Amino acid sequence: MAELAERLIARERAAVPEALNLIDDQRPAQRARAHALLARIEAASGPTGGAWRIGMTGAPGAGKSTLLDLCVQRFRADDLDVGVIAVDPSSPRSGGALLGDRFRMRASARDRGVFVRSMAARERLGGLADATHASVEVLSVVFDVVLVESVGVGQSEGDIAREVDTTVFVAQPGAGDMLQFMKAGILEVPDIFVVNKADLGALAERSAGELSAGLGLAERKSAGWTPPVLLCSARDGTGVDRLMDAMRAHRRHLEDSGELARVRRRACEAFVREALRERYGSFGLGAIGGSEGLDARLARIDAGAFASVQRIGDEIESKLCGAPPEGHA
Amino acid sequence: MAELAERLIARERAAVPEALNLIDDQRPAQRARAHALLARIEAASGPTGGAWRIGMTGAPGAGKSTLLDLCVQRFRADDLDVGVIAVDPSSPRSGGALLGDRFRMRASARDRGVFVRSMAARERLGGLADATHASVEVLSVVFDVVLVESVGVGQSEGDIAREVDTTVFVAQPGAGDMLQFMKAGILEVPDIFVVNKADLGALAERSAGELSAGLGLAERKSAGWTPPVLLCSARDGTGVDRLMDAMRAHRRHLEDSGELARVRRRACEAFVREALRERYGSFGLGAIGGSEGLDARLARIDAGAFASVQRIGDEIESKLCGAPPEGHA
Repeated sequence: MAELAERLIARERAAVPEALNLIDDQRPAQRARAHALLARIEAASGPTGGAWRIGMTGAPGAGKSTLLDLCVQRFRADDLDVGVIAVDPSSPRSGGALLGDRFRMRASARDRGVFVRSMAARERLGGLADATHASVEVLSVVFDVVLVESVGVGQSEGDIAREVDTTVFVAQPGAGDMLQFMKAGILEVPDIFVVNKADLGALAERSAGELSAGLGLAERKSAGWTPPVLLCSARDGTGVDRLMDAMRAHRRHLEDSGELARVRRRACEAFVREALRERYGSFGLGAIGGSEGLDARLARIDAGAFASVQRIGDEIESKLCGAPPEGHA
Repeated sequence: MAELAERLIARERAAVPEALNLIDDQRPAQRARAHALLARIEAASGPTGGAWRIGMTGAPGAGKSTLLDLCVQRFRADDLDVGVIAVDPSSPRSGGALLGDRFRMRASARDRGVFVRSMAARERLGGLADATHASVEVLSVVFDVVLVESVGVGQSEGDIAREVDTTVFVAQPGAGDMLQFMKAGILEVPDIFVVNKADLGALAERSAGELSAGLGLAERKSAGWTPPVLLCSARDGTGVDRLMDAMRAHRRHLEDSGELARVRRRACEAFVREALRERYGSFGLGAIGGSEGLDARLARIDAGAFASVQRIGDEIESKLCGAPPEGHA
């Protein structure tokens, strides 16, 4: 385990598949090894180290994949290595194979500086949140940039916003009343909005205008950053340079304002919360006082996410094997 | 509890808010009472009784709400009472208040034959799946039709398809390459497809054509039913009658083919699985042999969902307080 961790920390590309396979292994002994690996990697990265983590989200058909591919090419032109994670929480059936195929067919997948990982809901014992977070951590020590693609935003499963530093939301022109996005809470989360298919002209411009107007009314998670609304065309590459500039500007904002530490801290807390819930359920969490007990422990987190899950988990297991919480039915 | 159950079974409207409040109550003693209530209601409805359950799903902005409202009016014109559940898994922040407001503003909300319930992700200890399923069960004994609106399809949270008999997917014209829907596994699930905003003309017709073509390739969950693709305009009401006809035809298909029993059985199993996972997590399920152990118990389910959760839960709790499963970290 220590050796695999050292290889990853030395940014050895060949160690990545082995680490990801270990993470996927559901056998108890392997899961313990995976957590030891992840805790070690986390300690090496520190609270704000590792790759720049960018999420790209939006409805199916909005053009995320093509846009992401163009961004990968731009990063490669700057000589940055890129890890891509495609999260597909929506299809228990296709099992992620289609996503994998899609990526493999694309140009950037033939580049050695690009690594692509597909994740699907599959059998969910073990948890998609667990697996996504763990994969981001692994790629984050090896690559300069980690790009996560998902259809989810603001949702529990497939919610990539909380895993990444910079969230890009890809909308399509004519995707209806932007007020609906606002009502669904979607405008609160992303750092950058892209209206794709700018080749659709007036329709795209009207949608961008509606988005901007909606953003003026939405409650924002982060002060000091006004999310830009950009027009892009993934088809002909229009606007991709401006998107890259906006992403870099957001990254600088995170660093200059000290927000990056807060964003990472929040990601860590959210992961610990979700991982413990997946592992122990409301009954198990009841053993440490439910939500309140968990909140109190989260406020005291000082180690990394995986070490914290381990520590709080040990406490839950030891308490569970005592008396069950009173009155729980 | 018995009295509240009897009032619901006697279809007393005034008992509904009390029952739903009880379901929402997270205190252990209240949860036990809620489960007793639900088990009793379930036993009264039987495996295929209660309301016709219809789900309406699609991306934000697709026009689900307006369309659903028009359907409610049609059901009311047939003198059927309607319960509506609006599930909003996407916004932990807005807490469902916006959805509630939206419905309250609408015409049908002033009708005594219509009851509207909003559900949001909120604090998730206790579980959205739990709450949605329980609310459907309560409304199902009192009303003739239960309509569930959600943005989710094929996802774990907010996945209404597994809770309902008939799933309507509302797409919007120009919602991109329908192949993307297929890749996301969306085409596998719904029973009826609606392309809304038919007033957009050629674009709507092209989208409907793409959907139909995609459907020809998609793997379907149910034999003997080919999902129709309909053009609608929620704005001017065009196509709503055809949608109603399609829903009725699907309902007849379910009854005539015996599929209804299978659909309800699957809903029951999915609920038990999800509820146990939310309550006990992978650690707790490990005590009964994990996925395999759970599958074996699900195959033997003969009582209702709530009674089964209770029985398997009791087994897990008694085993958890013995030795923890070997090697679990």
